[in-house]
Amino acid sequence: MAPVSRRGLLGGGAVAAGLAGLGAFAATEALAGDADGSTSADDLAYPFRGTHQAGIVTPAQDRLHFAAFDVITDDRDELIALLTAWTEAAERMTRGAGAGPIGPTQGAADLPPDDTGEAIGLPPSGLTLTFGFGPGLFTDARGRDRFGIAERRPAALEELPHFPGDQLIASRSGGDLCVQACAQDPQVAVHAIRNLARIGFGTVSVRWSQLGFGRTSTTSTSQSTPRNLFGFKDGTANVKAEETDALSEHVWVQDGDDLAAGWLTGGSYLVARRINMTIETWDRQPLADQEGFIGRTKDTGAPLSGGGEFTAPDFEMPGSDGTVIPATAHVRVVHPDNNAGARMLRRGYNFVDGTDDLGGLNAGLFFIAYVRDPRTGFIPVQTAMARHDALMEYLKVTGSALFAVPPGVGEGEYVGQSLFA
Amino acid sequence: MAPVSRRGLLGGGAVAAGLAGLGAFAATEALAGDADGSTSADDLAYPFRGTHQAGIVTPAQDRLHFAAFDVITDDRDELIALLTAWTEAAERMTRGAGAGPIGPTQGAADLPPDDTGEAIGLPPSGLTLTFGFGPGLFTDARGRDRFGIAERRPAALEELPHFPGDQLIASRSGGDLCVQACAQDPQVAVHAIRNLARIGFGTVSVRWSQLGFGRTSTTSTSQSTPRNLFGFKDGTANVKAEETDALSEHVWVQDGDDLAAGWLTGGSYLVARRINMTIETWDRQPLADQEGFIGRTKDTGAPLSGGGEFTAPDFEMPGSDGTVIPATAHVRVVHPDNNAGARMLRRGYNFVDGTDDLGGLNAGLFFIAYVRDPRTGFIPVQTAMARHDALMEYLKVTGSALFAVPPGVGEGEYVGQSLFA
Repeated sequence: MAPVSRRGLLGGGAVAAGLAGLGAFAATEALAGDADGSTSADDLAYPFRGTHQAGIVTPAQDRLHFAAFDVITDDRDELIALLTAWTEAAERMTRGAGAGPIGPTQGAADLPPDDTGEAIGLPPSGLTLTFGFGPGLFTDARGRDRFGIAERRPAALEELPHFPGDQLIASRSGGDLCVQACAQDPQVAVHAIRNLARIGFGTVSVRWSQLGFGRTSTTSTSQSTPRNLFGFKDGTANVKAEETDALSEHVWVQDGDDLAAGWLTGGSYLVARRINMTIETWDRQPLADQEGFIGRTKDTGAPLSGGGEFTAPDFEMPGSDGTVIPATAHVRVVHPDNNAGARMLRRGYNFVDGTDDLGGLNAGLFFIAYVRDPRTGFIPVQTAMARHDALMEYLKVTGSALFAVPPGVGEGEYVGQSLFA
Repeated sequence: MAPVSRRGLLGGGAVAAGLAGLGAFAATEALAGDADGSTSADDLAYPFRGTHQAGIVTPAQDRLHFAAFDVITDDRDELIALLTAWTEAAERMTRGAGAGPIGPTQGAADLPPDDTGEAIGLPPSGLTLTFGFGPGLFTDARGRDRFGIAERRPAALEELPHFPGDQLIASRSGGDLCVQACAQDPQVAVHAIRNLARIGFGTVSVRWSQLGFGRTSTTSTSQSTPRNLFGFKDGTANVKAEETDALSEHVWVQDGDDLAAGWLTGGSYLVARRINMTIETWDRQPLADQEGFIGRTKDTGAPLSGGGEFTAPDFEMPGSDGTVIPATAHVRVVHPDNNAGARMLRRGYNFVDGTDDLGGLNAGLFFIAYVRDPRTGFIPVQTAMARHDALMEYLKVTGSALFAVPPGVGEGEYVGQSLFA
């Protein structure tokens, strides 16, 4: 039976069919239209296959559902079968079709539908699905090489060290596999994660998952810089999709980076950190103090040393208390000039998970960054931040995970195939 | 100092100014435009003041942040001062301005800003803020009349009874005050709740809060019916804004309904129920079983007795097992014809709050309904559902609350003023 397009069910026409052959980068512009000829952000469809996985340099969508999984089988073939099934489902869902070939409302009445149905009628909404492999996939907690891939484990794929300020919750950290679902519509992102979890029933179980409602990063120069829950612009200095050289230097694993893990060439590392903000305490700080903690103005996002949002900060400019940009300002502590040139591609989201036991918002930043090597690209910067950054007084890291993100999926391949080939 | 428009900060022009004089109903169409003349759903602004509170018959926005508060003062004047401050802030924020008169980036450097800033540059996004009073505001847990209003307590404002299937979590239930924030952009809804909580610091504390990402109800005939996380259309038979007579009969408290609580005339009652769905179990049920539990087809939402989505169900149509629509089908159990004509205005949202301890999605429906009298409009229907509805096997109610929703706020008034006058 032919795939059932979600839009097709409502007569919206075949959207995004035939996109698979286009490169990921070309998809940064609207490619799909309604039957009436209009286009909107929701009609956007990104091809699942390409040189790199989508969802990294893709212009950051507005909504996130991120899930980490434990693999509960020791059978290599079952794991490969899951990755194959996930690849097929991901390709379908990212073009706006159902998770399975039959769809949510067709097929035998005495069988469960192969799609759960809550996204019927919704457009592709720019959905991307990005898959990663955690350290435990290579060597589990008991040191076992469950899937015969331990010797191909990337040297950089170690659990992150404990940083000052970490108050990690085990059930919000780690994982053997991860899927980052980003879309303009949260119902579409949730639908994708739910159906991938359903496909994995018996092979994987969800370890944790996180929704994010507001992107905090800009991954393309076509996007304006959004604000985090401190009320400040975030991600101004992010590596952008248009910076091809910087992506090669800071984001994509290069040939020869890790001789034991050549399968990861063209991939990346995904760092996930659930960073709770003490919102209520922050909100009682004077404006000048808030700006001093960040090192930028709250209004335009310009560095305190002057100019506009994209002006380079002048860390030497003298001020009444040493320098205009304080020694502990976030922008100084994490700046590439002060971290051996390290840059990341950040892709974080604001979250609010209800209320904590003290009546404060359980809220903050679900930080996601893609780096070529976390040992140089993330850990030193995070260490500096944990030690020196004035913001740390208002942050509590409650979740943490690291994943190796395999390269893009070619025609006829499944995600991560180079690891198992 | 003049109010700072969020859009004004980015040069977007004064949006939604001068709307206050329009009736709430007129605002169901787009009223605000960008400076360049274009309009979008995000530019929508609803007036805060009117005959009824906005956020009830307003066409259901896509996103929700709902908060319940405990009042931590015993001082009547402090409570009134809070309601006055909330009214001013709500009026500002619903037109797209900051929470306070100074704004997030102006004013003295040595004072905290009077707005937290994360919504700078965002349009009004159709924000509505709807306020309610819980039973504890009138008589607290120790039986005290803290604010001199016990004798004006509506007879129907009692904590809801325990229903079969309730597994309530105290920290997700109840509350002295509530605020329902609905908007097209979750960052705008979150910003509103956060700033109201901030204004209430020392007078109220947040008891619980809930985000919802996908509306499940249709409150205007102009909207298409969305889907809940069972994958089915939800809210087909909802009371709609256009049904003036039905609103008077089923939603708005009428003059004479409660002689002790005449202040509530023109208001309503808000029932909130956090209904967890056992998603993974549901997803393993055959399509025909799912449709039998609901009594409608999954595809078009038509009753199993035939026709289209809006065709009336034929509960007598004979089928192979008695009737085509099973005896325990949801559509039958809750139908007005089987519940003494009771109808509600539903305004629920899908939620996913990460993962539960067993690796399932902590997900479901945050049910919100507005009724003229919960004793006739909600409790009997919920009792029938808890006893007979096939869906109950897949539901677990983890939160519950009831609030009296005062009428709309007139010029120069604060929300709920009729209760204290």
